[in-house]
Amino acid sequence: MNIIDIINKKKNKQTLTFEELDYVIKGYLNDEIKDYQMSALLMAITINGMSEEETINLTNIMLNSGDTIDLSEVNNIVVDKHSTGGVGDKTTLVLAPLVAACGLTIAKMSGRGLGHTGGTIDKLESIKDFKVDISNEDFIKQVNEINVALVSQKDNLVPADKLIYALRDVTGTTSSIPLIASSIMSKKLASGASKFVLDVKVGEGALIDNLDDARKLAKLMVKIGKANNKETICVLTNMDEPLGCAIGNGVEVIESINFLKGNHVEDLYTLTTSLAAIMVSIGKDVGIRQALIEVTEKLENGEAYQKFLDMVSYQGGNIKEIELSSKIHSIRSNKSGYINRIDPLKIGNLVKQLGGGRTSKDDVIDLGVGFLLNKKVGDHVLENEELLKVYYGRGDIKIKDIINCFEIDIIEKTQNPLIYEVIK
Amino acid sequence: MNIIDIINKKKNKQTLTFEELDYVIKGYLNDEIKDYQMSALLMAITINGMSEEETINLTNIMLNSGDTIDLSEVNNIVVDKHSTGGVGDKTTLVLAPLVAACGLTIAKMSGRGLGHTGGTIDKLESIKDFKVDISNEDFIKQVNEINVALVSQKDNLVPADKLIYALRDVTGTTSSIPLIASSIMSKKLASGASKFVLDVKVGEGALIDNLDDARKLAKLMVKIGKANNKETICVLTNMDEPLGCAIGNGVEVIESINFLKGNHVEDLYTLTTSLAAIMVSIGKDVGIRQALIEVTEKLENGEAYQKFLDMVSYQGGNIKEIELSSKIHSIRSNKSGYINRIDPLKIGNLVKQLGGGRTSKDDVIDLGVGFLLNKKVGDHVLENEELLKVYYGRGDIKIKDIINCFEIDIIEKTQNPLIYEVIK
Repeated sequence: MNIIDIINKKKNKQTLTFEELDYVIKGYLNDEIKDYQMSALLMAITINGMSEEETINLTNIMLNSGDTIDLSEVNNIVVDKHSTGGVGDKTTLVLAPLVAACGLTIAKMSGRGLGHTGGTIDKLESIKDFKVDISNEDFIKQVNEINVALVSQKDNLVPADKLIYALRDVTGTTSSIPLIASSIMSKKLASGASKFVLDVKVGEGALIDNLDDARKLAKLMVKIGKANNKETICVLTNMDEPLGCAIGNGVEVIESINFLKGNHVEDLYTLTTSLAAIMVSIGKDVGIRQALIEVTEKLENGEAYQKFLDMVSYQGGNIKEIELSSKIHSIRSNKSGYINRIDPLKIGNLVKQLGGGRTSKDDVIDLGVGFLLNKKVGDHVLENEELLKVYYGRGDIKIKDIINCFEIDIIEKTQNPLIYEVIK
Repeated sequence: MNIIDIINKKKNKQTLTFEELDYVIKGYLNDEIKDYQMSALLMAITINGMSEEETINLTNIMLNSGDTIDLSEVNNIVVDKHSTGGVGDKTTLVLAPLVAACGLTIAKMSGRGLGHTGGTIDKLESIKDFKVDISNEDFIKQVNEINVALVSQKDNLVPADKLIYALRDVTGTTSSIPLIASSIMSKKLASGASKFVLDVKVGEGALIDNLDDARKLAKLMVKIGKANNKETICVLTNMDEPLGCAIGNGVEVIESINFLKGNHVEDLYTLTTSLAAIMVSIGKDVGIRQALIEVTEKLENGEAYQKFLDMVSYQGGNIKEIELSSKIHSIRSNKSGYINRIDPLKIGNLVKQLGGGRTSKDDVIDLGVGFLLNKKVGDHVLENEELLKVYYGRGDIKIKDIINCFEIDIIEKTQNPLIYEVIK
């Protein structure tokens, strides 16, 4: 077997065998296959595609390229949730304690932000002293005691994906649906949960910008889950505007706390309760309506918030000290009208420019900066009324660029639904 | 402009502008664009193709990536010939003095062998003391005095092609017709001649294995030539068996000398006189029949051979000492019948195994080893009659593997023509 023959096969639209894919991943990990050969193969896959069987095989080979988390000592059903990444997406912060309050276990490993999207681990670190690096033993002890833990992904979990993901990022091969599916699912399967709910974001602020591709990705991930005997449900959701009002690390944690205390922004509420209800439904094997009633109850009676406080306290965090800049600037609208669009990609990139996001993995980020929207899409705004607050840090951005994120018109535009469809 | 956007354009089947291709080549030469990005782009080009305009632009950008040879001080028409590479292809050794004897100038830079095909420069070095590295001044002086010089390609001629060619070799991107065309034509155009005859080999022993692709490549190269105001004619020829009887370095030089002395093998004779006639026809602007008469005459009256001797002497070579192994083994047929096939790829690889070719560029080759066929395709052989002589060196090969290069049957198979077509 040699890498050039394998590249040529995929170039000629042929199917790669399990053994060939295994040879590629092992060879790449031990540096026998070079970056320039891997990127040529990734481009051939991006253009010519992979069959379902190839994608399932690739996922399992990646999954077994490093450690996997053994949750057999957790004496409860472990459900997991993943989002393909959006702007202002603090769903995990709210969803994890909410689902735990419903009696299921959330033993979740999350990532850091890169590019225009944030990461749960960065957000949690804006809570003073919150520990995200926890040993396997402590992780299992915590979830057995309080049903919930949010920690950073272990270093040797799916090392093949780490390398390939970094290479795809710089070689124009991020858009391949089979590669996205195997990347997400190998990490999910390695994390040890038994049931998965995947939030596939669709829109310009997301990895996938059209519903057709999102549907393909969702179906593929559901099949990979099934092939591994793990129930997997995908929810296709709209990323046409940032989720909720806060975009940034500390500011999103504060919004999440307010949310758990009962102060609901509509889109965040709809998405979180829907995803939580699906998780409770599959985790406890009950109907979706009954699940939604339970979820709503746990949110309203404060049990979800208490779970959040328990988790923060268990992981050493001080809930009273959340990093937030005191350099606040109010941005006002230059005209009256309906807000027809708030560009999530531009917003995400501006928060990155403020210092709230990373361009490369080694960047140190400013957890206190961000945006807090005073208006959402569909709202009416008057001239000189506040559009948003900016929490400034070291980075500088132009007010004109912020204003340009908003499309305001006298005629109100019809918006896409927040939840497009559920694929299982 | 950035490389990821450019890769994405080609991935999405869009056309790259001159400025984008220029950015790619310059960036790759100064290491701002990495091997893994270039190989992703090369794969996208290999799968999605390039338009004629893109290919012409790429050729000109590569051509200008380094030095070009200025032949303005040569006071004669300079014609050049190139072969896409075959097994036993010593055409240049015979053609160059022959065309020079007809009054045209051949100021030719050639390469070394790699893989299963040989290179003119290696072959010439089997003549004792023959100098292939000559200064530009001496090169021009020589061609002005004797109309012919065969030297090795200058180091800084088309450096972009050198880098890209090496990368294509290890990333499964050698088969792209636009990339082959721009590689060949950038080197040809940089070498300073004004008219080109290109021998496009077709068959399993060649870069291109089917007539359709060969035709596409030929048409593209003719267009690139025209776009640069250089008359270019392509001849599509058969590489179903080695050309002539000798395969190896010294042994091919000896066959060439015998040929120039009047000892003709049919296929080599047909190909050489046809290519020479086309060169004379375009170089002197005469009809092809008149050109063929002149070529035949110069071959028969010994003037072509004299040119060869003049060139060897001018370049310091000693024609009486040609490297050839004295370890000769005669291989005999194990059955009677017609020779229906002599596999050129297998033969080329066996000569490489003998030590006569390179696996990597730094390999030192054995100039004295090779094969001398006693039978060609279409000949009849008796059991125990000699098929070929092997000139052994340090490398060892199995007699079974040699015999396996020959297909012998009681029924004679119809063969493809030697010259498929001429494209201009």
